[in-house]
Amino acid sequence: MSHKFVYKFDEGAAEMKNLLGGKGANLAEMTNLGLPVPQGFTITTEACTQYYDDGETVSSEIEAEILSYLADLETRTGKKFGDRDNPLLVSVRSGARASMPGMMDTILNLGINADVAEVIAQKTGNPRWAYDCYRRFIQMYSDVVMEVGKKNFEDLITAMKTARGVTQDVELTADDLKELAEQFKGEYKAKTGEEFPVNPRDQLMGAVSAVFRSWNNERAIIYRRQNDIPSSWGTAVNVQEMVFGNRGDTSGTGVAFTRNPSTGERKLFGEFLVNAQGEDVVAGIRTPQPIDKLAEVLPEAYTEFTRICDILEKRYRDMQDMEFTIEEGKLYMLQTRNGKRTPNAALKIAVDLVDEGVRTREEALLLIDANSFDAVLHPVFSPDALKTATVVAKGLNASPGAGCGAVYFNAEDAVKHAADGPVLLVRLETSPEDLAGMYAAQGILTARGGASSHAAVVARGAGICCVSGCSDLVIAADGHSLTIKGQTVREGEFMSIDGTTGNIYIGKIPTVEPDLTRGDFAKVMGWADDARVLGVRANADTPKDAAKAVELGAEGIGLTRTEHMFFAEDRIRAIREMIVSKTSEQRKTALDKLLPFQRDDFVGIYRVMLDKPVTIRLLDPPLHEFLPHTDDEIRTLAAEMSLTFESLKATVTGLHEANPMMGHRGCRLPVTYPEIAVMQTQAIIEAAILVKKETGADIVPEIMIPLICEVKELKFVKDIVTSTADKLIADSGITLNYHVGTMIEIPRAALLADEIATEAEFFSFGTNDLTQMTFGFSRDDAVKFLPAYYDNKILENDPFQRLDRSGVGKLVEMSVKLGRQMRPDIKLGICGEHGGDPSSIEFCHLTGLTYVSCSPFRVPTARLAAAQAAINNK
Amino acid sequence: MSHKFVYKFDEGAAEMKNLLGGKGANLAEMTNLGLPVPQGFTITTEACTQYYDDGETVSSEIEAEILSYLADLETRTGKKFGDRDNPLLVSVRSGARASMPGMMDTILNLGINADVAEVIAQKTGNPRWAYDCYRRFIQMYSDVVMEVGKKNFEDLITAMKTARGVTQDVELTADDLKELAEQFKGEYKAKTGEEFPVNPRDQLMGAVSAVFRSWNNERAIIYRRQNDIPSSWGTAVNVQEMVFGNRGDTSGTGVAFTRNPSTGERKLFGEFLVNAQGEDVVAGIRTPQPIDKLAEVLPEAYTEFTRICDILEKRYRDMQDMEFTIEEGKLYMLQTRNGKRTPNAALKIAVDLVDEGVRTREEALLLIDANSFDAVLHPVFSPDALKTATVVAKGLNASPGAGCGAVYFNAEDAVKHAADGPVLLVRLETSPEDLAGMYAAQGILTARGGASSHAAVVARGAGICCVSGCSDLVIAADGHSLTIKGQTVREGEFMSIDGTTGNIYIGKIPTVEPDLTRGDFAKVMGWADDARVLGVRANADTPKDAAKAVELGAEGIGLTRTEHMFFAEDRIRAIREMIVSKTSEQRKTALDKLLPFQRDDFVGIYRVMLDKPVTIRLLDPPLHEFLPHTDDEIRTLAAEMSLTFESLKATVTGLHEANPMMGHRGCRLPVTYPEIAVMQTQAIIEAAILVKKETGADIVPEIMIPLICEVKELKFVKDIVTSTADKLIADSGITLNYHVGTMIEIPRAALLADEIATEAEFFSFGTNDLTQMTFGFSRDDAVKFLPAYYDNKILENDPFQRLDRSGVGKLVEMSVKLGRQMRPDIKLGICGEHGGDPSSIEFCHLTGLTYVSCSPFRVPTARLAAAQAAINNK
Repeated sequence: MSHKFVYKFDEGAAEMKNLLGGKGANLAEMTNLGLPVPQGFTITTEACTQYYDDGETVSSEIEAEILSYLADLETRTGKKFGDRDNPLLVSVRSGARASMPGMMDTILNLGINADVAEVIAQKTGNPRWAYDCYRRFIQMYSDVVMEVGKKNFEDLITAMKTARGVTQDVELTADDLKELAEQFKGEYKAKTGEEFPVNPRDQLMGAVSAVFRSWNNERAIIYRRQNDIPSSWGTAVNVQEMVFGNRGDTSGTGVAFTRNPSTGERKLFGEFLVNAQGEDVVAGIRTPQPIDKLAEVLPEAYTEFTRICDILEKRYRDMQDMEFTIEEGKLYMLQTRNGKRTPNAALKIAVDLVDEGVRTREEALLLIDANSFDAVLHPVFSPDALKTATVVAKGLNASPGAGCGAVYFNAEDAVKHAADGPVLLVRLETSPEDLAGMYAAQGILTARGGASSHAAVVARGAGICCVSGCSDLVIAADGHSLTIKGQTVREGEFMSIDGTTGNIYIGKIPTVEPDLTRGDFAKVMGWADDARVLGVRANADTPKDAAKAVELGAEGIGLTRTEHMFFAEDRIRAIREMIVSKTSEQRKTALDKLLPFQRDDFVGIYRVMLDKPVTIRLLDPPLHEFLPHTDDEIRTLAAEMSLTFESLKATVTGLHEANPMMGHRGCRLPVTYPEIAVMQTQAIIEAAILVKKETGADIVPEIMIPLICEVKELKFVKDIVTSTADKLIADSGITLNYHVGTMIEIPRAALLADEIATEAEFFSFGTNDLTQMTFGFSRDDAVKFLPAYYDNKILENDPFQRLDRSGVGKLVEMSVKLGRQMRPDIKLGICGEHGGDPSSIEFCHLTGLTYVSCSPFRVPTARLAAAQAAINNK
Repeated sequence: MSHKFVYKFDEGAAEMKNLLGGKGANLAEMTNLGLPVPQGFTITTEACTQYYDDGETVSSEIEAEILSYLADLETRTGKKFGDRDNPLLVSVRSGARASMPGMMDTILNLGINADVAEVIAQKTGNPRWAYDCYRRFIQMYSDVVMEVGKKNFEDLITAMKTARGVTQDVELTADDLKELAEQFKGEYKAKTGEEFPVNPRDQLMGAVSAVFRSWNNERAIIYRRQNDIPSSWGTAVNVQEMVFGNRGDTSGTGVAFTRNPSTGERKLFGEFLVNAQGEDVVAGIRTPQPIDKLAEVLPEAYTEFTRICDILEKRYRDMQDMEFTIEEGKLYMLQTRNGKRTPNAALKIAVDLVDEGVRTREEALLLIDANSFDAVLHPVFSPDALKTATVVAKGLNASPGAGCGAVYFNAEDAVKHAADGPVLLVRLETSPEDLAGMYAAQGILTARGGASSHAAVVARGAGICCVSGCSDLVIAADGHSLTIKGQTVREGEFMSIDGTTGNIYIGKIPTVEPDLTRGDFAKVMGWADDARVLGVRANADTPKDAAKAVELGAEGIGLTRTEHMFFAEDRIRAIREMIVSKTSEQRKTALDKLLPFQRDDFVGIYRVMLDKPVTIRLLDPPLHEFLPHTDDEIRTLAAEMSLTFESLKATVTGLHEANPMMGHRGCRLPVTYPEIAVMQTQAIIEAAILVKKETGADIVPEIMIPLICEVKELKFVKDIVTSTADKLIADSGITLNYHVGTMIEIPRAALLADEIATEAEFFSFGTNDLTQMTFGFSRDDAVKFLPAYYDNKILENDPFQRLDRSGVGKLVEMSVKLGRQMRPDIKLGICGEHGGDPSSIEFCHLTGLTYVSCSPFRVPTARLAAAQAAINNK
């Protein structure tokens, strides 16, 4: 039985998106709604998949089916391919299941050749138009189907203009264009070695193959990765009778949104060009007119268009993004789809649609894209200023927002100059020593490192914008200037970076702050909180972060990294003293100096959080992170600490590890140096006692032991914690509850979670490390080979950004099941980077975790994503 | 209901080893066989466990039970603790479930005090003996129970001898010894702050606690780790009426084996001392006489002893290791157990027991310790070299084999220098503190001690050669040199010792491989091959290794590491050229240079293996391993390669990784540089075609892709391999089969083994990396913290030596199940270090793997262990 690979527009429906692609399904829907849509048919996404299964060829079965639908189209339109009287011209457009604007390729005027052009010239009495159509088709087809570069064609046009002594395309005559068409065909033959196809059917099959092929071009792959579209979906192809917006002053073409996609305002938004073909609007060669001008220019068409806008918004119950063409006064709809919108517009449209009674709250929540939602929290560049700004280079959009400041190349300078005005910190890559500088900066720009690099993680955590891994960036050896694409910027000079797009600019671009008090944000967050099942906590290391987290709706802290507190100037000395200690006694003395600092940190956090839960993780990183590494730094520190250079150097060398990620860190520190856990527990509990006495709030610290791989290891460290804590509580004269739990971040812990749960009151999945160990990918090093994995379609996403459900997820599910078997009421959270990623949050919802924890600025995203997960999986 | 924690000897049996410990169970068995055993009782291993559960105290319930059994013993012997007429003296000895010679502590003469000593002096008319017993007891008790160092007591004895103007202990009079006893008690009080316990019951309870405590002393922990004894077992305590071998010339004490533990010869083997207490024989202070001399000295006791030996061998159906004491002509058995033996003796005894009809072949196989079995493969001195070598002195041939190394005089130095080359440990006598040094040495040489001394027992157990009791050996007071027959050897200089003959040589003597064609080895290996289910392959990278593997019984090669071939002088240049290549073309040119080398490697291996399977792993390590790292080396190489220093330095720096173990290596190399896999496949297949044409053997290469974490990754590399291979085979004009499989060494691959199995024809578990990722332990770095894990009993074994069944094993079992679901006939092997470890081999058997692969010298061990696994798990 033969499979149906082609559908006429009136055979489809909006619901058939998976098969017909978004464009095809919507053309079908508009056709069935009786709207004016040029006739045509859609070749399905399954045909695309089949094309790849067949080794990138269109099977003869599919070709036959296409040609039979073409014959039918010829019958319906009364036109014929290559006909001397009434030639059929068609457009060929891709249309994937999800909208991929600008990604796939379009060919207009297909069916034209020298004979047909002449027929049209005569029939329309407009030879210039006929030959313009012709040369455009050759140009587009060559570019899209045969990948003959555009530039050669542009050069030929320029040469022709020079020869004719004119400057504008429109000044070329019909004969000029006819001659250009011949030159184009010659160019095509020179480049491809073949004659330009004359037979419209050959043109059609070439174009269909090209659309299928373009599904796997580089831009498409990158876009899919960025937007989480599986490569297995494939694209459909739409073949549609051409209508012409360039047949004079009663013709035109345009694009419009039913609401404003930047602001969400309920007002038709768009633009059109009189006497133009589709691509002219997008290409930006002529400046189009705003859509409401159409009411003056072609009032009937405008009235019809607004009528259709209403019909489409009612049908789709969402803002529509439409393309239309007017041919000699008659309006044709070429496309409609749910329009892309800025996060702010998404908020307003969602609220308006609920207010208008069009959508329920839950439906409205699903209209907001969680992946880009946190942009509503970040300052953005003024849209007006961006229009005239030049992008000098691009990096990875590592942390969203806009940053503009004077550049400095080390943390110290950045901190110093931040007092005088905004600064940008520019580094090859960042390390924990740079923290102060990073926090002081408006933005961080690095030459190396991916979306999970130190710079990116810290920046997202702090809500600072960051563009990372800009390979065009070269920092001068003296560390006082940079060059980027041949331009030099000296320290103190201004640059601007856009963490949402990855764009980099030289000079100042003004930014505007978001207003979170506005009603839409609060309203939508309220709906999300009603809908979600998952709790949402934040990762916060300071009272300031904690306060920001609470402001943004966090219900607790899921991760306080105690080590971040140790890098401050006044503490790093004591921690270094601890590290160079030779005896347990010396270590205790040094730790005693740290105790008051650490206790104060927790006092500050408890005062903010009060009876909201706070999970505090014991010291995690390897100790060498706290020591300097160059000989000069070691020499300076040795002098400060009254040690010999050799002795300190020996300590530093002794702490060096081949694979520090799997080295002496996490719970392995208190196994070897129990004093560390004693001091940290003391700080945690003493602070809790103090704030409980002070405020009366029911402080219940959650003490989290990292990097556990074995229950006896957990028990060993837990015994240190409980014996220390219980004594302090007994001496305090008040009651204080606390919990001891563990990170599940080592595969063995996940595999033996039942045993671990006998000692752990809660699990927090550390999916950063768990992903590293499960894949055997070092986060720092994988950036070197992951691009090849994307190019070869081995991986579609960065597993450090989006939780890998099949592998890492299997371990998480296993842990949840085993952990609950042993301890049915065990609290389960996630505190890796994935805690702020919508797809990963959905996984957490499906797996039945108790909460997700993410950086404070991701909290609103997490609340929204958790709600969407609950609604989508009811 | 009260639990029974104490058993009289006649309440026990040999089968109750778990409860009564080995010593207690065998004392019970001997008692029940009607053999002359001094009466007594055993405190169970459960009492020891209880002791630890109760926070290291003996509960009053257990104490009461002990005292009631003591009362019963008093009744039965007619003697009483502290009695003025007939005082009871007892020995207190530990006895764990598994024999732990020299590990646990013994106290003799317990029950003595000043009054009792005086009673004994008067009753026996031998005051010197009475006070010698007394001072020995104080000394032993102080050392064992209160850990007052031995040295102080030795100093007091020396001072007494000096004061008396004598040189030998035996020259001290009864009064001298009485005075010494008082001095000892003073020393005890000075060190402990307490009076030495006078009450025998206090002494008993102190001694029982000390035995329990000693279960967790450092030596015991090390021994358990080395011998795979769980710390949860605990030790029993045996309390037994004293008999005295030091009551004159018709008394004596000795140890003997029913067969020769070095050679396995069926002939009584052992030694005794007249007029001595047990410890004197073991301590090696006086040199004992061979056991057959006893026939002359005390013929009746000897006859009785040989009769008992026969009874015991029949009962236990194995060689027995016994202790006895003769008190005034009457023989008492103090212990019997299955004797430790050298691997060669184990072979002979196994074969003899089968020949004698005592054991079946399968039973006999179980008598051989697989853990030390590979010592039968250990080298012996070259007979030619021996002809011209001068024997400088002779000692006892305590443990066979040839040892040659730089001499060091303490364990610490031996361990330290063992890293640089072979070492010999030279000691006056060894004690359990020396264990680490003994295990690190090629051989052990002692000045004192017989064939049953600590040095001899440990060395035989570990398969290390040992010459003991060389009285010509004098170690300098500063412990940095020795003199032997007038010649001086300084630390670091070489000596050679022959544990089979007892000969000692100065300087190096070359060693030769043992002759494995001899009958016992071949016979036992044949039985093992009949019994085992698992296949045994070897890891071999060269034709030489492959030949050795086949000689030792390997049925194929489970792992050929292709990278090892790249380090040779003539190849490293080409691989470096490949690494610095900037384009795919340059890379191909460099790889073309490597191709002939790599092809020759495989030709050599196939010629050895013929139709035995050969698994070849594609390039695995990160590329930076092939580059130099210091600036000087880089400069030299840059000059050689006509590169600038800066450019090569940049390449080296660019390849640097934070965590290379999880970096750009394994299959990640061909994903980024497919040319590498093309070249390697070409070498593998061309070599196979060549050798197949040449020999007609059915060569079927198994191409193994390492470090897979995802099936698409495997498919990508497999496609490169198969397209390359299929073309070469098609062009060759012959048929050649080959298989493509993968390592399972990344947790994700194990979790998704069903998907992976759709592309992999075989799995080989790379349990080295799998252990690293599953635990999150870097093998290079874990050495720093693993000791703390052993000390704190978090881990009992090095998971890199013994496969962790609960965590890593769970992943392996999961993979096996998932893999077989998809591909029921999938071939499953293991090629990590664990492939040669008996416990891990048992796991592989239980999990149903097809084969294990280990280093060539471990092949016999693997064959034996595989057989034992099959027999034990029938």
